[in-house]
Amino acid sequence: MEPELQIGRRILLGPGPSDVHPRVLRAMSMPLVGHLDPEFVALMERVKRMLREVFRTKNRLTLPLSATGSAGMEAVMVNLLEPGDTAVIGVAGVFGGRMAEVARRAGAEVTQIEVPWGEVIEPARFASALATLASQGKPARLAAVVHAETSTGACQPLEEIGRIAREHGALFVVDAVTSLAGRPLEIDAWGVDACYSGTQKCLSCPPGLSPVTFSDAAVERIRGRSRPVQSWYLDLSLLEQYWGDSRVYHHTAPITMNYALHESLRVVLEEGLERRFERHRRNHEALVAGLEALGLEMAVAAQHRLPMLNAVRVPEATDEAAVRARLLERHGIEIGAGLGPWKGRVWRIGLMGESSTPQNVLLVLAALGEAMGAVTTGDALAAAEQVLARP
Amino acid sequence: MEPELQIGRRILLGPGPSDVHPRVLRAMSMPLVGHLDPEFVALMERVKRMLREVFRTKNRLTLPLSATGSAGMEAVMVNLLEPGDTAVIGVAGVFGGRMAEVARRAGAEVTQIEVPWGEVIEPARFASALATLASQGKPARLAAVVHAETSTGACQPLEEIGRIAREHGALFVVDAVTSLAGRPLEIDAWGVDACYSGTQKCLSCPPGLSPVTFSDAAVERIRGRSRPVQSWYLDLSLLEQYWGDSRVYHHTAPITMNYALHESLRVVLEEGLERRFERHRRNHEALVAGLEALGLEMAVAAQHRLPMLNAVRVPEATDEAAVRARLLERHGIEIGAGLGPWKGRVWRIGLMGESSTPQNVLLVLAALGEAMGAVTTGDALAAAEQVLARP
Repeated sequence: MEPELQIGRRILLGPGPSDVHPRVLRAMSMPLVGHLDPEFVALMERVKRMLREVFRTKNRLTLPLSATGSAGMEAVMVNLLEPGDTAVIGVAGVFGGRMAEVARRAGAEVTQIEVPWGEVIEPARFASALATLASQGKPARLAAVVHAETSTGACQPLEEIGRIAREHGALFVVDAVTSLAGRPLEIDAWGVDACYSGTQKCLSCPPGLSPVTFSDAAVERIRGRSRPVQSWYLDLSLLEQYWGDSRVYHHTAPITMNYALHESLRVVLEEGLERRFERHRRNHEALVAGLEALGLEMAVAAQHRLPMLNAVRVPEATDEAAVRARLLERHGIEIGAGLGPWKGRVWRIGLMGESSTPQNVLLVLAALGEAMGAVTTGDALAAAEQVLARP
Repeated sequence: MEPELQIGRRILLGPGPSDVHPRVLRAMSMPLVGHLDPEFVALMERVKRMLREVFRTKNRLTLPLSATGSAGMEAVMVNLLEPGDTAVIGVAGVFGGRMAEVARRAGAEVTQIEVPWGEVIEPARFASALATLASQGKPARLAAVVHAETSTGACQPLEEIGRIAREHGALFVVDAVTSLAGRPLEIDAWGVDACYSGTQKCLSCPPGLSPVTFSDAAVERIRGRSRPVQSWYLDLSLLEQYWGDSRVYHHTAPITMNYALHESLRVVLEEGLERRFERHRRNHEALVAGLEALGLEMAVAAQHRLPMLNAVRVPEATDEAAVRARLLERHGIEIGAGLGPWKGRVWRIGLMGESSTPQNVLLVLAALGEAMGAVTTGDALAAAEQVLARP
C-alpha cells in the first residue's frame, strides 16, 4: 500500500504553478455535483462572464477548456488551421517554438519569425512575412505570437502586430498563458482573434484548465472549415454547444477545477485588474533592484521585462542547480531553471498572482544571497524595500 | 461581482461523476507544489504503480493523461493510428460511435460493427470484419470496443475479441471509462493493448484525468510511426518522457487532480478490487430486484448488465424529465437521462464507486416510488433488502 500523501509547504516562485489563495483551496473541497446539474450550469455561466472581464472582451465564445494551457494552444491551432493553410508565427523562446510545432501538426505551412532568446520581435517582420505569403498567392490564415514568453521573461508588444495582421486579412492569435491577469492584455481593443491562457500562473488557480476566447471572425472561420477539426476533444464547434444554451453533451467537465477557477476569478476581480497589474509591477521592480544589488544581471532588457517572470543570469562559476536545491530544501522556495539554450545559464523567478508579494521579494533575495554567499544581501534587501516603500 | 459559490448537497446516482470520498476532497485542499518538485515526482511514481494494480497490468507506459476520459479515447486513437490505417470498431451505443468518429478524425478507414442499443457484439463479427480487411490487403491496425457502454448499461465480454484481434495481428483497444475499478478488467490476462478510463466513475475521483495503459506492442507501434502524432498535447512519445525517468518538460500536470487521484487509488486499493467488485455487484442486484418490484423493466438482458450503470425503461405515459427533476429538487438525487435513441425512454441509474451503497439503493427506490406514485414501494424496498441481507 502506498503511504498517505505528505506534501511539504512550498513558496512557489518558479514559472508556475503559483501559490493558490486559501479560498481557492477551500472551494476544491466542496462536494461534487453533476456536470449537467442546474447549479453547475449556473456556475459555467458565471465563469464565462468573469473570464470575459479578465480577458477584456465581449467575445461570446469564451470558456475554460478541460485541459491545461498547452491544450489551449493546440485548440486554437487545430480549430483555425486546415492542412495547407499558411501561418506566420513568432519564435522568441520555447513557447513560440511549440506554437509552430503544433501548427505544423495541424497540417499548416509555417513561416517562423525567429529572434534570439530574450528579445522581442519587430512588428515590421510580421508585415514582411505576411506580404511575402500574399505575393505567393498563399495569404496567411493567421499570425501568432506569445505575449509573455515564459522561457525568457520577455514581453512582446501586441498592438502593432494585431494591426498588421488585420491589414493582411490574417487572424491574430496570442498566447497569454503567463500574462493573463498579471499585466495589461486587451483582447478587444488590440484586435486579438484567438487567445488562450492557463489557470496556474497569474490567475493563481491550480493547473488543469485553459481559458480561451475567440472573436466573431475566428468563430466564422471555424464555421467555414471544409473538414472537421482533427481533435474531437478540442473541437470548438462541439464545445460551443456544450458550454452554450443548448448544453449538448460533449465530455464531463472537471467539476472541481471549475469550482477553483470560479473562486480564483472572484479573487482576481475583487482586487481589480488595475490594482493587480500595479502590484505585479511594483514587486517586480523591487525584485530587480534587489537582484542588481546582489550583483546579478537580468537576462532581458529593462523595457521588455515581464513583471511576473524574471530571468536572471547565473554568475560564472556558480552551480545553478545547487542554488535552486538549497532554496528548495532549506526554505521550501521553488524557483525555475533555464530551458533550451538557457539551461544552466539563468534562473527564472516567478512573481505570479498570489505569489507576487513584498514578503516573497524579500525572502527570495535573502535566500539567494545566502545560497550564493553574497556580501551584499543587506544592500539588496534595502534596495527592494526602497521600491516597495514608494507611495 | 459574482456571488460566492453555493453548492447544494447531491447524491450522485447518474452516469458520472460519482460521489467522492471525504479523504479525496480533503486531499484537494492541500497546498500546491511545483510539477517538477521531488515530492510531486515521487507522487507521480506512486500514482503509476497504483494505476498498474487497478488495471491489473505490468505495462510500463501507464499514467493519467491531463484531461478527461474523452481525451484518453482520443490519445489512444491518434497515437496508434496514421492516415490510411484501417480499424474495426464495435458500436453499441454513444461511446462506440464516438470511438469511430475519433478514429476517422485521425485519418483511419473505420469498419463499424453495429448492434442495437443495449446489446453486445458477437465476437465472431470481429473475426469476420478483420478477415475481410486482411483479404483486401488492408489488415486492421486495431480492433476496439467499449467494455462498459455508459449510454446503455451493457457489458461487452472482452476475452474472445482480444484473442481474435491477436490472431489477426490487430492491436486490441478497450474503453474502460466506466468499468475500471467497478467490475473485473484484466489488461494483461485478456491481452488488451491500449486502454483508457476516466477518474469520475468507479474510481470516485473528480473528473479531470484519464488513466491510460499501453502494452509493449502498442508502444512499439507508436515508436514505429512514420509521421508525428497529430496531437502534440496527447503525444505519448512526449508524455512517456515527462512521466518517465528523464522528466523532460512537456506540459504542467494538474497538481491538485493528481493529489485527488492518488488518494482515490489508495481508497480503492484499501478496499481491495475483489471486495469492491462484489460490493458493486450486490448493490446492483438489490437495485434491480427493487426496480422490478416497482414494476419497472431493465433495458438490458440480465446476462449483459453492468453493475455500475443501470438503464431502466421509462413506463408509458410517465414524464421522465419530471421524475428526474423531482428526485433532484426534493432529494438532491441525480439520476441520468437517456441519450440518442434512448432519449426520453430510459433512466440511467449509476451505482459507481462511493455512490454504490445499500443506503443509496434504498433511497433511490423510495424516491422513484414516491415520484411515480407507485403502490409497491414497500415491496421494492423489501426486495432490495432481501438481496442486501444475503450472507
